[in-house]
Amino acid sequence: MSLQASRNISRFWEWGRKIICVGRNYADHAKELKNAIPKEPVLFLKPPTAYVREGSPILVPLYTTNLHHEVELGVVIGKGGTAIPQSAAMEHVAGYALCLDMTARDIQDECKSKGLPWTMAKAFNTSCPISEFIPKERIPDPGKVNLWLKVNDQLRQSGCTSQMIFSVPYLISYISDFITLEEGDLILTGTPKGVSAVQQHDELQAGIEDIVTMRFTVDRQDH
Amino acid sequence: MSLQASRNISRFWEWGRKIICVGRNYADHAKELKNAIPKEPVLFLKPPTAYVREGSPILVPLYTTNLHHEVELGVVIGKGGTAIPQSAAMEHVAGYALCLDMTARDIQDECKSKGLPWTMAKAFNTSCPISEFIPKERIPDPGKVNLWLKVNDQLRQSGCTSQMIFSVPYLISYISDFITLEEGDLILTGTPKGVSAVQQHDELQAGIEDIVTMRFTVDRQDH
Ligand SMILES: [Mg+2]
Ligand SMILES: [Mg+2]
Ligand SMILES: [Mg+2]
Repeated sequence: MSLQASRNISRFWEWGRKIICVGRNYADHAKELKNAIPKEPVLFLKPPTAYVREGSPILVPLYTTNLHHEVELGVVIGKGGTAIPQSAAMEHVAGYALCLDMTARDIQDECKSKGLPWTMAKAFNTSCPISEFIPKERIPDPGKVNLWLKVNDQLRQSGCTSQMIFSVPYLISYISDFITLEEGDLILTGTPKGVSAVQQHDELQAGIEDIVTMRFTVDRQDH
Repeated sequence: MSLQASRNISRFWEWGRKIICVGRNYADHAKELKNAIPKEPVLFLKPPTAYVREGSPILVPLYTTNLHHEVELGVVIGKGGTAIPQSAAMEHVAGYALCLDMTARDIQDECKSKGLPWTMAKAFNTSCPISEFIPKERIPDPGKVNLWLKVNDQLRQSGCTSQMIFSVPYLISYISDFITLEEGDLILTGTPKGVSAVQQHDELQAGIEDIVTMRFTVDRQDH
């Protein structure tokens, strides 16, 4: 049996090799962090070790005192490609996942002010909680779905992907011009406004309309 | 046959999931770019699609006019781990590779001044040329080997890993505190001074003493 044959796209987090994240893709969120509206997508990476699934906790790194949730639509790549035209982009999508882009905001602010990469703020273990895989058919238009997130039953984020500055096909085309996309890659498409800090013992719930929900608890890193 | 069983560490670039790079790890290089000497390692990521092997060209992205070479010792992880103590770090090393951290310096400067992540400057296709795999036994002390790089037969970089600010065991321990290391991961350990721009048709040669050499040509991205 070949390596290829043992891959199941519905468990992309076990073997996928890239998580490409888009920052500031909702104008209202860019404004709440006092950032400029970008003319081109702002991209950063998380490693696959950032994935965490329901049943395991989100861990607050020891070095942050301001860990934020960012609820995002994740796009799972089913067919790889380079320089994919926007018109063909959706053929490369296998499905979706609801994702959190957990962000050490204090560290990110420090990196931004010092001109340093965002790795410590964005790429730590458990910085990418994800839902189950959502087959493409269940979201006919990724540009028109509502995302929400609650902390301890209080609604914090609620937004529609129609508010995105750069659409899913635009992002796939833009990224694949200089980073080849592969089967199992995940693109996080940015967060609507309402990001806020979480603490040990908080419970996060998030969902996409009636399509998926997920629940995570927050714990401290213990070493 | 399991996914695990089909993995061969000497072809880590085909299945490894992370490339973690250390910036400013040689004081003389930090100085040549007018950067402060870091108190903690500066870390950034490349995706596995950045790998390029001898026989294929390094491609200059369309958006840069100042692509730099950075010759670096790469450390290949053989045994994964989290919060690895420095004293055990070398047990997690399977071997090494000679690597280039190709960097769009103009884009990196722009990212630094705007507080943006370094993805466009560091993570593009072919931004991580690598040699063959070097088994651990061939480099008894990774803190005492000489690296060199020539462009069109002119020596540009020559340095010893003894000049590193943070040692290989320190880096493995530091990184694994917040990013779990996995088999097949690669750590790029920073570059000595002498970085410079390359152009289409240039030929790069690099080596580690009498242990390994590699050769790459430079071409333009064609779309
Ligand atoms: Mg980065
Ligand atoms: Mg985000
Ligand atoms: Mg470098």
